Amino acid sequence: MDKKLRVGVVGCGAIGREHIKRITHKIAAAEVVAVTDVFEDSAKKAAALCGARIEPDSAALINAADVDAVLVTTPGFAHAEPVLQAVAAGKPVFCEKPLATTAADCKRIVDAEVAGGKQLVQVGFMRRYDKGYNQVKELLDSGDFGAPLLVKCTHRAAGVDDSYTTAMAVTDTAIHEIDVLQWLIGDVWDSAEVIYPRNTVNAHEGLKDPQLMLLRTKAGVVVALEVFVNCRFGYDINCEVVCEDGVIHMPAPSWPVVRKNGQLSTKIEDNWMRRFIDAYDTEIADWVDAALRGVVEGPTAWDGYVAELTADALVAAQTSGRVEPIVSGEKPAFYGR
Amino acid sequence: MDKKLRVGVVGCGAIGREHIKRITHKIAAAEVVAVTDVFEDSAKKAAALCGARIEPDSAALINAADVDAVLVTTPGFAHAEPVLQAVAAGKPVFCEKPLATTAADCKRIVDAEVAGGKQLVQVGFMRRYDKGYNQVKELLDSGDFGAPLLVKCTHRAAGVDDSYTTAMAVTDTAIHEIDVLQWLIGDVWDSAEVIYPRNTVNAHEGLKDPQLMLLRTKAGVVVALEVFVNCRFGYDINCEVVCEDGVIHMPAPSWPVVRKNGQLSTKIEDNWMRRFIDAYDTEIADWVDAALRGVVEGPTAWDGYVAELTADALVAAQTSGRVEPIVSGEKPAFYGR
Amino acid sequence: MDKKLRVGVVGCGAIGREHIKRITHKIAAAEVVAVTDVFEDSAKKAAALCGARIEPDSAALINAADVDAVLVTTPGFAHAEPVLQAVAAGKPVFCEKPLATTAADCKRIVDAEVAGGKQLVQVGFMRRYDKGYNQVKELLDSGDFGAPLLVKCTHRAAGVDDSYTTAMAVTDTAIHEIDVLQWLIGDVWDSAEVIYPRNTVNAHEGLKDPQLMLLRTKAGVVVALEVFVNCRFGYDINCEVVCEDGVIHMPAPSWPVVRKNGQLSTKIEDNWMRRFIDAYDTEIADWVDAALRGVVEGPTAWDGYVAELTADALVAAQTSGRVEPIVSGEKPAFYGR
Amino acid sequence: MDKKLRVGVVGCGAIGREHIKRITHKIAAAEVVAVTDVFEDSAKKAAALCGARIEPDSAALINAADVDAVLVTTPGFAHAEPVLQAVAAGKPVFCEKPLATTAADCKRIVDAEVAGGKQLVQVGFMRRYDKGYNQVKELLDSGDFGAPLLVKCTHRAAGVDDSYTTAMAVTDTAIHEIDVLQWLIGDVWDSAEVIYPRNTVNAHEGLKDPQLMLLRTKAGVVVALEVFVNCRFGYDINCEVVCEDGVIHMPAPSWPVVRKNGQLSTKIEDNWMRRFIDAYDTEIADWVDAALRGVVEGPTAWDGYVAELTADALVAAQTSGRVEPIVSGEKPAFYGR
Repeated sequence: MDKKLRVGVVGCGAIGREHIKRITHKIAAAEVVAVTDVFEDSAKKAAALCGARIEPDSAALINAADVDAVLVTTPGFAHAEPVLQAVAAGKPVFCEKPLATTAADCKRIVDAEVAGGKQLVQVGFMRRYDKGYNQVKELLDSGDFGAPLLVKCTHRAAGVDDSYTTAMAVTDTAIHEIDVLQWLIGDVWDSAEVIYPRNTVNAHEGLKDPQLMLLRTKAGVVVALEVFVNCRFGYDINCEVVCEDGVIHMPAPSWPVVRKNGQLSTKIEDNWMRRFIDAYDTEIADWVDAALRGVVEGPTAWDGYVAELTADALVAAQTSGRVEPIVSGEKPAFYGR
Repeated sequence: MDKKLRVGVVGCGAIGREHIKRITHKIAAAEVVAVTDVFEDSAKKAAALCGARIEPDSAALINAADVDAVLVTTPGFAHAEPVLQAVAAGKPVFCEKPLATTAADCKRIVDAEVAGGKQLVQVGFMRRYDKGYNQVKELLDSGDFGAPLLVKCTHRAAGVDDSYTTAMAVTDTAIHEIDVLQWLIGDVWDSAEVIYPRNTVNAHEGLKDPQLMLLRTKAGVVVALEVFVNCRFGYDINCEVVCEDGVIHMPAPSWPVVRKNGQLSTKIEDNWMRRFIDAYDTEIADWVDAALRGVVEGPTAWDGYVAELTADALVAAQTSGRVEPIVSGEKPAFYGR
Repeated sequence: MDKKLRVGVVGCGAIGREHIKRITHKIAAAEVVAVTDVFEDSAKKAAALCGARIEPDSAALINAADVDAVLVTTPGFAHAEPVLQAVAAGKPVFCEKPLATTAADCKRIVDAEVAGGKQLVQVGFMRRYDKGYNQVKELLDSGDFGAPLLVKCTHRAAGVDDSYTTAMAVTDTAIHEIDVLQWLIGDVWDSAEVIYPRNTVNAHEGLKDPQLMLLRTKAGVVVALEVFVNCRFGYDINCEVVCEDGVIHMPAPSWPVVRKNGQLSTKIEDNWMRRFIDAYDTEIADWVDAALRGVVEGPTAWDGYVAELTADALVAAQTSGRVEPIVSGEKPAFYGR
Repeated sequence: MDKKLRVGVVGCGAIGREHIKRITHKIAAAEVVAVTDVFEDSAKKAAALCGARIEPDSAALINAADVDAVLVTTPGFAHAEPVLQAVAAGKPVFCEKPLATTAADCKRIVDAEVAGGKQLVQVGFMRRYDKGYNQVKELLDSGDFGAPLLVKCTHRAAGVDDSYTTAMAVTDTAIHEIDVLQWLIGDVWDSAEVIYPRNTVNAHEGLKDPQLMLLRTKAGVVVALEVFVNCRFGYDINCEVVCEDGVIHMPAPSWPVVRKNGQLSTKIEDNWMRRFIDAYDTEIADWVDAALRGVVEGPTAWDGYVAELTADALVAAQTSGRVEPIVSGEKPAFYGR
């Protein structure tokens, strides 16, 4: 284990610092050697966490000789530039989701990567590393359940602040299911529709909540996703896959079962970060491990592009009230089957 | 307990004989005194179960002086006539679902009953008597959960025979949810839509299975009902009500939890009649009890009419691919709020 | 259904009136024709429930020509006399548990019944009619689980009043498990022991609570029964049977599963009568049905005697701290295998 | 993160190599620099896993200048010597359970450590690092449940090989509960008893299985532990704590809930190593972290000594049939409260 992956971090906000702590304390095979941020204070705080030096900007950081790989944790609108710089530099780059905030920008990254001839980009869809989704995938892939036909999901959160918009139910919330379900059932999105049930009185003015999003794959699998971000009772992620020969329900993380006050109860998680903390750990550990082996194995730039396209279709469906097509085009052979 | 309700039964097939046995053996307050059927053999078998006499036809049976109340268990297409005869005779009549096979016939019964000035008809939607649905309704009615917003149901059966058609997924299967959910959430249907997910290979040729039916109420509550009649694993009725302040999931009947062969498992019922046997018992016992008190308290002729209208809309939606309106008109004051 | 079982009721307190209402309203095949009680007021109230006449005492009631069968619901110490009178009169008699308050009195009833040559007595151990226990028994009897080895039970109640004594944890509480478990596993008690864990501060002065009762059968099966009558959270009956090839856990009655306030929860019953209401109904209906066929099929006088002997051993063990033998002698062939 | 803990490993069998891989691949803050084993081949295999050098014996390894801390993973009988050597050298030492195979040897280690004046020894009771136990402990420590009164556990395994003896049900199996429960409820063992239920036919000749072990703490808490190592269905660890104000049941690791073949089921783990793999990871990571801070925070030598004493009492109780006292003496102030 002589060689460690030397990581440079672009963007030192909350999520960036989380990853820095993760790499520093939990991952034997990597170390953060350089950080950068447009806010100097943020960069200083981050550097103090890991003893890294501060670089003036993303170009300097990415091109530094001792930076083997890049982690991009800037705000979404500032993802595309450092990712393209890393691709140009031929260095592995992990970019938090979304890959970019427009499908066009995502496509530029895909094109640059394909032109470069080497897969370098991983997008931070951490749910693919969640134990529960992987247990479901293992059962689906076993063949014991036949083909998936219908998938029912919930993405519920106790509440949101007033800046949360109806469109963000797609771009911030459903985006996770958009990526993970396509991976889970091994299929490609074909169309999207949004249905608004009766609105909760607990949503702030103007926010449509809950929403029922319907996605269809090319093979005809229908996903019915409830997004409900003012459900009040907790952070509640469910996924049930109805197959030809059985139904699989993803488990929630386990908690003690308690008898008290006339009830048999278990806790529901209230916090998305705790809900997926293990998935974040595994995601980064696996990225480091693959980077040391010279490969990328997680969600690709193409996945990031497709997620963005699909989000666009859902947002369009939110206002059109119609079924909107999702046309992602042929996946480049470069990205495998 | 001197007075017993003297019941006449029109239609002596399987379901008729079940009810005759139920009344004879389980219900103290009633007895079957007369039966009739177009097939003499069926009538004889039924009469033998309870010591009743055989009447030549429904008119003779219904108008017999010692028949206090009528049970109609003929095939669906032969429901309207005896129900109308009972209404004309001013006698309480319990009619198995559907009330009639066309909305027009249902409306004729409603009109006759309203014209007669006395509520006499009960339709056999037994799920309203199921313990689980009533437990959910009690929680909903408690106000502790706020308004219902979205309801998710499954109506799954292990398999169906070759005579089962795509339309029957509505008229024979979803018909139960059509009635019980409107009652459960205390609202009125407004529109219907049907979405076809990828079809199971286990359905016989020409059958669309599973189907995702979407119903919307006037208050905007959306019901997403999965009908899947070749699910292979059992008879699996689920109902989850997403409310403003919490989510309620109806329980399945209880079975032992077993550890064996590397699994923790409970049984899933394989049989609709066993699944709802207690509901059937309660339904008839309550009907008898109400009839002795001179009232009808179960699902009304109006409910039967609305169910038929709603089924029509869903069947239309199955082929149109569109959202179909459900226009039931104003409920006559006669039927209460 | 011409013939009805004409029942006379001895003892018109709370439980007596419950059974009178049950027979009157729920059981087609029986009617209460006569009642008696040492308190005239109680008898009047009971008579008013069912239109029965009042008899001056148990002898008069039992020997009345129109009384086909007898229900004894006096206080426990007053069970033996009317049961013996019914046996002498050759009439079927249902006696609430316990059969009598001493093993000697139970034995007198057994001897009288055997001497009379006809089985007439049924003891009111209603748990044998509970759906959950019967589901477990069906699995045990299927042979799929091999022999039972170890049984773990809880008998928990939220609280008790100050008159409840340490011995009553056996005679009023564990008495139910004493009978039902022997029936469940088809075996005979051999010895008893009581262990006192740390006492709850919620018990009133002098009451040992919880208690861990250990019973052993002749085949060596060990039962570990937790009796905890100040558990505070509800009425919680559990039974887990560890077998050679698997473990079976009896279900609790089903309630909705609810998401609210950060918890996934179901209700725990708080009331023993509601917990076993269906079992009481079935118990009496089956007794009536058997009586009309001239037989007794429920718990016998012998079962009542063995339960009393076993309770004596447990009470002895409560103070001796030792393993106490349970010597019931050979079961008379009269009672079957 | 400059400084890494340089670990020397004594004993390169299966469990030793597991820990070497764990430190090498999963723990950023440590590296294995030296290994030793009486079998040269084992040492070579282990060295190849991590690039460490081979030392001729435990003394050489422990006293090497570049070894900061020692991991002892020899067979149990060979634990005491290297642990004592590490204590003499003043180096932190992690010793797999048991600390030693006799209470006397454990006591020698305790005495040496106390004499040395610095806490250095940690014993490998990994369950204290299991998520489920910690969730239960957190609830117990919250005070919301009052005092624990009665604890019910199962330690079930699908099967064992023919070398497994009745005593090993204590020394290899129950030893885990002996340690973890005392920690969980914060109390000290006082006495032990073993009860043999009917024996399973699936045990090999001479093996008593299942066994019901009863442990009592000084505060009177009773633990009823079922050890059943031929349960056939899986590896099934349960722990239920009955408290004054509620009951807490430890969860099993989560698996998908599946509908198939007439059953609703989840998997039961079949493998102890997979069941506790996360606990092993956390245990070693925490030991490394504490060692770098110059402290020991896990199970102490005293805990190892008490576990051995308690196991001795249970083994004595297996043959005596009596309640055996557990006399551990006063805990040295050295080990904290």
